[in-house]
Amino acid sequence: MKKNFVILYSLTLLSISAYSQSGEVLKIRDYRTAHEKDMINEFISFLSIPDVAADTVNLRKNATFIMGMMRMRGIQQVQLLSPATIGAPPSVYGEVAEPGAKGTLIFYAHYDGQPVNSSQWATGLDPFQPRLVNGVIGQKGTIIPFLSPGNSYDPEWRIYGRSASDDKAGVTAILDAYDAIMKSGLKPTYNLKFFFEGEEEAGSPHLNEILEKYRGLLQSDLWIICDGPVHQSGKKQIVFGVRGDTHLDLTVYASKRPLHSGHYGNWAPNPAMMLVKLLATMKDDNGWVTIKGFYDDVIPLTAAEKKALQEVPPVDEQMKKELGIRMNEMPGKTLGESINLPSLNINGIQSANVGKLASNVIPTTATAVLDLRLVPGNDWIRQQQKVIDHIRSQGYYVSDHEPTDEEREKYDKIIKIIPGKDGYNAQRTSMELPVAKNVIEALKNSTPEQVVLMPTFGGSLPLFLFEKYLDAKTITVPIANHDNNQHAENENIRLQNLWNGIETMAALMMMKQ
Amino acid sequence: MKKNFVILYSLTLLSISAYSQSGEVLKIRDYRTAHEKDMINEFISFLSIPDVAADTVNLRKNATFIMGMMRMRGIQQVQLLSPATIGAPPSVYGEVAEPGAKGTLIFYAHYDGQPVNSSQWATGLDPFQPRLVNGVIGQKGTIIPFLSPGNSYDPEWRIYGRSASDDKAGVTAILDAYDAIMKSGLKPTYNLKFFFEGEEEAGSPHLNEILEKYRGLLQSDLWIICDGPVHQSGKKQIVFGVRGDTHLDLTVYASKRPLHSGHYGNWAPNPAMMLVKLLATMKDDNGWVTIKGFYDDVIPLTAAEKKALQEVPPVDEQMKKELGIRMNEMPGKTLGESINLPSLNINGIQSANVGKLASNVIPTTATAVLDLRLVPGNDWIRQQQKVIDHIRSQGYYVSDHEPTDEEREKYDKIIKIIPGKDGYNAQRTSMELPVAKNVIEALKNSTPEQVVLMPTFGGSLPLFLFEKYLDAKTITVPIANHDNNQHAENENIRLQNLWNGIETMAALMMMKQ
Repeated sequence: MKKNFVILYSLTLLSISAYSQSGEVLKIRDYRTAHEKDMINEFISFLSIPDVAADTVNLRKNATFIMGMMRMRGIQQVQLLSPATIGAPPSVYGEVAEPGAKGTLIFYAHYDGQPVNSSQWATGLDPFQPRLVNGVIGQKGTIIPFLSPGNSYDPEWRIYGRSASDDKAGVTAILDAYDAIMKSGLKPTYNLKFFFEGEEEAGSPHLNEILEKYRGLLQSDLWIICDGPVHQSGKKQIVFGVRGDTHLDLTVYASKRPLHSGHYGNWAPNPAMMLVKLLATMKDDNGWVTIKGFYDDVIPLTAAEKKALQEVPPVDEQMKKELGIRMNEMPGKTLGESINLPSLNINGIQSANVGKLASNVIPTTATAVLDLRLVPGNDWIRQQQKVIDHIRSQGYYVSDHEPTDEEREKYDKIIKIIPGKDGYNAQRTSMELPVAKNVIEALKNSTPEQVVLMPTFGGSLPLFLFEKYLDAKTITVPIANHDNNQHAENENIRLQNLWNGIETMAALMMMKQ
Repeated sequence: MKKNFVILYSLTLLSISAYSQSGEVLKIRDYRTAHEKDMINEFISFLSIPDVAADTVNLRKNATFIMGMMRMRGIQQVQLLSPATIGAPPSVYGEVAEPGAKGTLIFYAHYDGQPVNSSQWATGLDPFQPRLVNGVIGQKGTIIPFLSPGNSYDPEWRIYGRSASDDKAGVTAILDAYDAIMKSGLKPTYNLKFFFEGEEEAGSPHLNEILEKYRGLLQSDLWIICDGPVHQSGKKQIVFGVRGDTHLDLTVYASKRPLHSGHYGNWAPNPAMMLVKLLATMKDDNGWVTIKGFYDDVIPLTAAEKKALQEVPPVDEQMKKELGIRMNEMPGKTLGESINLPSLNINGIQSANVGKLASNVIPTTATAVLDLRLVPGNDWIRQQQKVIDHIRSQGYYVSDHEPTDEEREKYDKIIKIIPGKDGYNAQRTSMELPVAKNVIEALKNSTPEQVVLMPTFGGSLPLFLFEKYLDAKTITVPIANHDNNQHAENENIRLQNLWNGIETMAALMMMKQ
């Protein structure tokens, strides 16, 4: 009830504010309101098709389902784009040529989902049997039946199921937006292309092959990536870039065999202590990475990007409360500022055992996995090298294999480093490109609220592939609620986010040329 | 061949050195040489009875077997000493009253063994089917049949099986020593008592009950603990004390739920990084513990102990070669010196996952298990407290439970510390007691080589119990080869060590009053 009150209040504000919501968006809203049951029914059918990476048969069923959705909406040239690698999931493509349009937009979403462990989902939920919940499961929300005709959906209700938000909501919002435009007597201002990938959650291992093979077909003025959550404040956001990512696996070696921690404790070197001392040299107490040159390559944010960042609604206190933490790693830096810096994180560390398996041992090895996130200017191989050089500067002999007896005789401190081979760089599109300004204007016209302009997403997507293979620009426009449990159990989409997403995608299809 | 040569050479040296081996010990050797096949046959039968902690039926069979060994040797008062706790394994007791003896020695060994995982043992070996190997398994040694009459055992051969060294060799050496004395027409100089424990490897949880219940029966002038390995140099050693031991389980808490290391990396606190920074403050680069007052309580070694330590044959270089390490944790300190200091070791550390299970996550918790070894002067609860105080001084809120929401709102850095409840203090017997001097002299007379006098064993045994419940003195006289794989797969006893052990125990039974 309280939430509804807020919505009504916002609508009241709307009429007295400087904001003028476009008539087109209101027509899209009217169409959606009249047809939301059909939209939900189609969405439920879509979510019911399993879409995990290993399940190629069902992935193909998803692709077929999407082709059906596109054909029903009158989209042309509907086809599968298969990579050169036989058997890898295809992307689904379609297009609409708009007479008189000067430019082309291509809308991206993906139809594959993260792996599932049904046993981790809340009672009554099932990853591939979507359920309606009158709120948030675990917070007073309970499962209710999908509606029969004559009743209406509360926008605070949520649909639970794998890919409900990541990213079948994206596919659905894009195709429903086009449908709503056409059925409302409106028309797009751009030629439209649609590209739905089938292995994003597997790390897009064949996206390069598809982009290369269909280079001609996939030309556009802009890729609009519909993936990920809106801003934690609940406001719409436009994301102009993503951080890059790479990893390093570190293993410190000590005695060849486990030693009794009584007989040899404080004589034999302890690899866990060696590793913690090494890792401790990598960050200061204010969360800054102390590795030489770690921040050197960073291309500073432009004045527009800095201004945008300052205008991001503060969510730090809200997030701290939600996560049960009191301090952030870099005191004085907001979340927005922090993710515009390269990062170094311990993803995992292990040496011998803890808990009931712990024993009185001096372990033989200690291992850690480091995650390095990159911002524009960083090069992933160069960033790895800075860490490796730092480790050398701490007196370590660095190798790529278990030490031989000869190496053990020669070096005091030995570490094996396996640098990740799958790294990629950050990507960022300028906010000041004409097409970027059009995107910003379109979103601003689609909502009475602030639109958050985010120079860089904290996470990483291989957006550099579009730049590399197509010389294309990308802008990410996410639609899911931030608490959608993406990648985890109990994934969900809040209905209001799906409705807003349809309006957002429609506004982009009709944006200024 | 080479080894035999060394032995012959030692015997040659013997005749021209200042050393005068006692005639008694040579008689014991003659008896053993003539009867070693019988001794081995009995030992094989003994080793064939499984003796792991959970197997109470077989533990009882071991106790019965030992009672048989004792009765055959004419030992009196043979009986089981059961603790107050019903069902806990009994100790086996027997005694010999020696007319005219002024003092009483009580010989301790244990008949239970460490848990076994047969699959980890070398091909052809089985924990409870003892095997003869003509050397070291994995180093050219191969399994050979036990001998038929008329052939002789090479002293470099080894018997493989659980408890071959730890500690059925101890039981066997003690009882064979007594047998050899009696059968050689010699006689003990002390009243003798025998005490064989049945749950040492389980941490002696009921030893206190037995000592308390049989306090009258167990009076003596000295407990001789026959357990553990001789010095790494191969020389006989007398150990006058053991380190104490206690533990702390540490868990650092950060976000309540795992976070994407892209979206929140270098904003959200990383508990693994927090823990490594905390642990790194506990030791300096020279291996010294930097916790306030960590070394304050240590009772300095006496002049005699310092001298003994200086005379310990250097084994550091040999051990480093064997273990494949080049440096020890405290540069400049020998192994002997290091284990006469209290220690702090990481037994295990874990946060999230490494290797194939690693994911792009900021973990929610990070855990480490610390092992604290203590020397005389340390109190285990006080030593735990020093570490806890240190952690507090690093800005941590210390609790004994998972943090509540209220605690999360109140404190920046939260750690759960579970102090081990099973700690115990170090124990050390003065080398200068008259009975200690007699032990030293007896061992010196039993070997042409140096006898290593070790003020403290690196490992821990609950020897304080003997002091606490019986007001007794203890001296440890180990006999196993140092590379016996105690507590692990492929446990073994080198025959020469068993033969030396019999001579050592016999020498003690006949030592000066």
